[in-house]
Amino acid sequence: MALQFPDRLAAATAARDSRVCVGLDPRPDLLPSTFAQSTASLAGVTRFCCGIIDATAQYAVCVKPQAAHFEALAPEGLAAMWQVIAYARKCGLLVILDAKRSDIGSTAEAYAQACFGRHHQGAVAAVDAVTVNPYLGSDGVEPFIEMADQVGGGVFVLTKTSNPSSGELQDLQTASGTIYQTVARLVNGWGASRIGETGYSSVGAVVGATYPQQLGELRELMPHSIFLVPGYGAQGGAAADVAGAFDENGRGAVVNSSRGIIYAYRATGGDYQQAAADAARTMRDDLNSVLG
Amino acid sequence: MALQFPDRLAAATAARDSRVCVGLDPRPDLLPSTFAQSTASLAGVTRFCCGIIDATAQYAVCVKPQAAHFEALAPEGLAAMWQVIAYARKCGLLVILDAKRSDIGSTAEAYAQACFGRHHQGAVAAVDAVTVNPYLGSDGVEPFIEMADQVGGGVFVLTKTSNPSSGELQDLQTASGTIYQTVARLVNGWGASRIGETGYSSVGAVVGATYPQQLGELRELMPHSIFLVPGYGAQGGAAADVAGAFDENGRGAVVNSSRGIIYAYRATGGDYQQAAADAARTMRDDLNSVLG
Repeated sequence: MALQFPDRLAAATAARDSRVCVGLDPRPDLLPSTFAQSTASLAGVTRFCCGIIDATAQYAVCVKPQAAHFEALAPEGLAAMWQVIAYARKCGLLVILDAKRSDIGSTAEAYAQACFGRHHQGAVAAVDAVTVNPYLGSDGVEPFIEMADQVGGGVFVLTKTSNPSSGELQDLQTASGTIYQTVARLVNGWGASRIGETGYSSVGAVVGATYPQQLGELRELMPHSIFLVPGYGAQGGAAADVAGAFDENGRGAVVNSSRGIIYAYRATGGDYQQAAADAARTMRDDLNSVLG
Repeated sequence: MALQFPDRLAAATAARDSRVCVGLDPRPDLLPSTFAQSTASLAGVTRFCCGIIDATAQYAVCVKPQAAHFEALAPEGLAAMWQVIAYARKCGLLVILDAKRSDIGSTAEAYAQACFGRHHQGAVAAVDAVTVNPYLGSDGVEPFIEMADQVGGGVFVLTKTSNPSSGELQDLQTASGTIYQTVARLVNGWGASRIGETGYSSVGAVVGATYPQQLGELRELMPHSIFLVPGYGAQGGAAADVAGAFDENGRGAVVNSSRGIIYAYRATGGDYQQAAADAARTMRDDLNSVLG
């Protein structure tokens, strides 16, 4: 049987000595002008994203396509997304679909099928992992986990998000700790029976780089969960802020950067692929420099 | 200027004396066999949903397409969803897209554009309202509200959901009440500057019929919010359970039933359209019978 998601991620990290996730957020207004001219047909978006994959694959372990930015390009945008996903996998990258879905019962199953479903690319899962929102409780998360089980995939549950207002609900104190700590305990429980060979489960957590203190707390509450850490770079998180996400072997997390890599050319000038490659390599080295 | 969403809904309720929302959850395994045979091309799903709209339009004020069930039908499923949405609007029904999206900043804007965006159907908003998830806080909800402002649309924020595990996070007590009460106060605040002619704001709340006590509490906390009430019928909620959602004029809420209407034929036998029409009419009368 093929390796499960946490073990595939550990293998990719070991092979490339990288913890970098490249966020694919195609925004027509930010693309190089040569692509923007052809976005009406979506071909420009697809070519741009595949160009980013070509440029960064050697420095990254995974990509994180942001479903919203593809959905915004009309219904056909999803076809472009699946083309990009297929290309990323062909290039040896794991794919975490950032969908942040939430629903219950058969509806959550339908979302899980839409994300992981085998209809997109023959007989294999369409993505390696997907992000989900925990507000609905177990009913809203378990259908995704169960679908992930079927395809050897993973689920990342929003726990402490990177945005400024994340504390409005997530930081509220209850008798048993904050809401994000409660989610962390649920995540730990969902993953307990799903731990792979490398000690990590298929149920991970989204924990923002912008809240380093909480990140350390959450590492203790979820010792077996892989962290997907957004907020590095453009959002203000630094490598030192995310050091606590990794174990002593440099495993246990991937750190995402979207704008900081894919639109690096806007700050540096020059070729967008060279700028993205430089940014991804710099980020990889920056993260590796803080490992214990 | 065209009426804003809460006023359009009030007008539709008055015109049809109905508070019924028909949930469109097309599941190939539950469709009449004549449609199931043609779902490979999605034409069956589209024809089935349009047939439900034809049968129930006179008894309902709105439809609620469930994005998940369309997304599960491969990328092309979304094209079917937009066809169904366009047909519902042509038939005079308001459309609440049940997407339960959640993200922040430019990503939430992209989702809002995907939901409300004008690219789908010429120069008008594509749907009347959309459901969103509050776990990320204001950053995750305001971009949807602001896009709704631009198109005269509405937003329904998940507050107390109808599922059995909704209490795992939503019912937790904090210093200022439960989490769902906290969300209700946020909803009330977001809507305060967006109140239409009929006294309701464009920022509504999803409150499950399965929790009648909380529904009453929430009505007091959000006097200007329209409630979208799922959980009637198949999930166990009765008309008496949702009576507290309405004001003395019979306004302020729409109650959704999905399976109980669109798959009524599976219990009754016979023609699926007749069964759906009967179920919608019965539900309309049932709800009206408990108005104050």
